[in-house]
Amino acid sequence: MRIGFLGGTGEEGRGLALRFAAAGASVLLGSRSAERAGIAADQYNMTLGRSLIRGTSNTDMLATSEIVYLTVPFDQVVPAVLANRGDLRPDLILVDVSVPLLFREGRPEYVDQVEGSNAEALAQHIPQEIQLVGAFKTIPAHVLSDIDTPLFCDVFLCSDNGPALARVAQSVRLIPSLRPLDAGPLRAARILERMTVLAINLNKRYKKRGARFRVEGI
Amino acid sequence: MRIGFLGGTGEEGRGLALRFAAAGASVLLGSRSAERAGIAADQYNMTLGRSLIRGTSNTDMLATSEIVYLTVPFDQVVPAVLANRGDLRPDLILVDVSVPLLFREGRPEYVDQVEGSNAEALAQHIPQEIQLVGAFKTIPAHVLSDIDTPLFCDVFLCSDNGPALARVAQSVRLIPSLRPLDAGPLRAARILERMTVLAINLNKRYKKRGARFRVEGI
Repeated sequence: MRIGFLGGTGEEGRGLALRFAAAGASVLLGSRSAERAGIAADQYNMTLGRSLIRGTSNTDMLATSEIVYLTVPFDQVVPAVLANRGDLRPDLILVDVSVPLLFREGRPEYVDQVEGSNAEALAQHIPQEIQLVGAFKTIPAHVLSDIDTPLFCDVFLCSDNGPALARVAQSVRLIPSLRPLDAGPLRAARILERMTVLAINLNKRYKKRGARFRVEGI
Repeated sequence: MRIGFLGGTGEEGRGLALRFAAAGASVLLGSRSAERAGIAADQYNMTLGRSLIRGTSNTDMLATSEIVYLTVPFDQVVPAVLANRGDLRPDLILVDVSVPLLFREGRPEYVDQVEGSNAEALAQHIPQEIQLVGAFKTIPAHVLSDIDTPLFCDVFLCSDNGPALARVAQSVRLIPSLRPLDAGPLRAARILERMTVLAINLNKRYKKRGARFRVEGI
């Protein structure tokens, strides 16, 4: 399974790239500068102790990936996708992991979106034939990037495209101790994005860092 | 611990009353008609096999309870509280468990509230000195009322009143396999109420009935 990252040098991208590579996926880091992507890939491979991740240009990454994670800050997702619009193939699956959050007096606040959620806002900006899936929204980036810690939690997926959701679910199952759950249509992102605020509040209250969700009874 | 129910004859009230009574709390069902409350209490005591629950008038229930659960339909919470306004003592803790949901074409939808959540709407209608806590919002009523099934999940509490939240948390700990978690201020109800939509969507997708949440890492 070929998994690409548009903006894979932040904490979320790093965590997902490392975990997918360690699980046997073919991982491509994309960047405007192929050289910068190569440097990040080298660092990640050092962490892994094996050369499993390759850095390249966004154009090359988008041409050869099947599933592409958009791992840029939440307000950069739409610009980053639009900047690469010419390279989006119709059979590509884009995965939005973003959460629109701001901290006010030390407390996380969800930034209300006119469209309902960041995922729905993105959906309005990409060509209709591109398949869009929301995923990993409720798992904090620093938890993902601490790759020695098993996750033991659920990954909620949402999409208006059933086959795309199922394919992303398959990829999630590669990573040990993660369970993909079909949370419904893309508009479920309204709930998933807000759950991150709850996770951060729980971390603050209990002086922990790793709050994440599991569903009992499914 | 004396726990009262304003409107305890629905599924949510039934489940909570039975579980609290079985856990050793002193449970009072309140109703406009003391007689009707008595009939419901008799039925619940039959289920329990012991006479642990008492039915009485709302006035009596509010005079003698320490924590009062508002277990009426979501759009009846404010009217039910206002109807009993004269009997609200300042040291009373009211617990809002409501979730504003409607089903459209078989799909649950969160009914957006001007105030942000049903809990916040209620806060604007009760005297400021009344202590208000949101709780049990993410656990489906039919899961609560199936008292032979251990819950094994977390109860998220939210309140702008720390001591009231802590007291409700103490009461939640009476019930085996439930863990109370401090989810932050009352506005966290915006997240918790929406999580119920996610739970219902998961139940529909996976043909289950008992989806409920646990937090890993806390």
